[in-house]
Amino acid sequence: MIESKIIQQLLESNSIAIVSHENPDGDCIGSMLALYMALKRKGKDARMFLKNNVPKNLRFLPAAEKIEVVDKIDEKFDILILLDTGELERTGIENIENCYSKLINIDHHVTSEGIGDLFYINSSSAATGEIIYQIVKLMGIDNDKEIATCLYTSIFTDTGGFKYSNTTSITHQIAGDLINTGIDFVYIINKVFDEMSLSKFNLLKDVLQTLELFEGNKIAFLTVTREMLKKNGASRDETENIINFARNIEDVEVAAIFIEEEDKIKVSLRSKYYIDCAQVAKEFGGGGHVRAAGFSSRNASLDAVKENLLKRLKSDLR
Amino acid sequence: MIESKIIQQLLESNSIAIVSHENPDGDCIGSMLALYMALKRKGKDARMFLKNNVPKNLRFLPAAEKIEVVDKIDEKFDILILLDTGELERTGIENIENCYSKLINIDHHVTSEGIGDLFYINSSSAATGEIIYQIVKLMGIDNDKEIATCLYTSIFTDTGGFKYSNTTSITHQIAGDLINTGIDFVYIINKVFDEMSLSKFNLLKDVLQTLELFEGNKIAFLTVTREMLKKNGASRDETENIINFARNIEDVEVAAIFIEEEDKIKVSLRSKYYIDCAQVAKEFGGGGHVRAAGFSSRNASLDAVKENLLKRLKSDLR
Repeated sequence: MIESKIIQQLLESNSIAIVSHENPDGDCIGSMLALYMALKRKGKDARMFLKNNVPKNLRFLPAAEKIEVVDKIDEKFDILILLDTGELERTGIENIENCYSKLINIDHHVTSEGIGDLFYINSSSAATGEIIYQIVKLMGIDNDKEIATCLYTSIFTDTGGFKYSNTTSITHQIAGDLINTGIDFVYIINKVFDEMSLSKFNLLKDVLQTLELFEGNKIAFLTVTREMLKKNGASRDETENIINFARNIEDVEVAAIFIEEEDKIKVSLRSKYYIDCAQVAKEFGGGGHVRAAGFSSRNASLDAVKENLLKRLKSDLR
Repeated sequence: MIESKIIQQLLESNSIAIVSHENPDGDCIGSMLALYMALKRKGKDARMFLKNNVPKNLRFLPAAEKIEVVDKIDEKFDILILLDTGELERTGIENIENCYSKLINIDHHVTSEGIGDLFYINSSSAATGEIIYQIVKLMGIDNDKEIATCLYTSIFTDTGGFKYSNTTSITHQIAGDLINTGIDFVYIINKVFDEMSLSKFNLLKDVLQTLELFEGNKIAFLTVTREMLKKNGASRDETENIINFARNIEDVEVAAIFIEEEDKIKVSLRSKYYIDCAQVAKEFGGGGHVRAAGFSSRNASLDAVKENLLKRLKSDLR
């Protein structure tokens, strides 16, 4: 079993570094922290590296302050563990290809082929956290509240709170098991998912005013201007999820949000039942999943981007 | 085991009526439909009665159209099953006390003591749907997609999507089991929970503009005026959950929403970690749970109601 081989390698090594992708999310950070703590419990010399800061809503997680934010790694480790991505370049960290003797890759993305000396890619796992849950259990660590807090965060975020179609009965079984350790999941969900900064609330208030509906309300657009971000002191990542307000409107099949950035317009797409957002985004030079995708547009006005996308989406409506 | 006794009674009887409380929610309707279908599968003559219409977002559920909306029941049934409440009066249906030979009560509310000839009250169940799940299973009905759709709806709504503290590992285990029947839970969640009418979207847009913050953002107020409801063609029940936008703001401990109705002001309260909403609401003549409660105020201006509540909430802040 590949998990056992991975565990054996880890326990036989001395220095271990854990890395994950740029713009880290709940799954990447939750998995990283859980694995880090498990290795520490086994007396291993483990470290964690990321290119970017831990998002504010995840900083309460145990050991989050131990994550080292770096541009480059100059040291050398016995093992480098690459989590939640199948490409070393996606870490955004320089010299990463020279910092290890052995590379282990653990991921759940369907696009991952697996790299390194050992890899465990399970695309039927809803989150990398599900795989780490198994590994931690196989390491003989059970009922650890701190680790469970991180893994619950992984799984909750990557399934959108057990709502996305990647959720399986195994996901629920694991969630139940993690809850049984006595974690304060109400607090976790509130911190990670529900809590909104005042700047985000104010941004939301403004963005909802921009709703445009087309084709009998089947297409919905929202717009975030630079002025809105500035006025409300909101950061770029606070635009996240606002698109769902448009997507969730009755009769809407597909929603788009247009975000004015310095040098480009970023467009996110979400569909409900049949429009292939990945395909649409691809045609505009972007990519993503079937129900959630995106692209960026340079050298075009906001109106032109909207017009082109509207035309394209209309052709897919039923 | 009380479940077996209940099942035996049901299978030995001929005519069965199922009733539940006024202003039906997802748990009440999901449980009712699941039990109804299970009895039908066993060849029983079952019927369902409610005082109010099935909410729009639940009408897609299988057999929902079989629910009879009545003010009074004149017939007589071998068995009346009272679901999701421990009081016959809460059905709001006249003559209900004379319509049965035997009464069976199934509920999960901690306030229920159980009434009738047989009762099964389990307050550790997150939803009445969890109890019905067990009963249906014990009836030998397994892997029934239509029943699973209703039970998943029950459990998802009464746990706020596995987010409330009533969620247990059993809740997750049941959810996983229901998912395994192949139900389209993404569709269910979208229909029951996420989908928003355009009138609700427009109401939300207006209500968010009314945010008032007090005491270093620990207290947040939102207001729904009669004009807002009228202007947007929104119904009273479309104000539901808007309060969470205020509650979820960082630093907010307690949120209130003031809804102007014809003859009174309805106030809902939500707290995050320590304010006892039930206690506060009680002092204003209302009631509810620790983290979610409410009251109504007659013969007082909106400003006066706000001022009084603010004063009271301030005294509880830490």
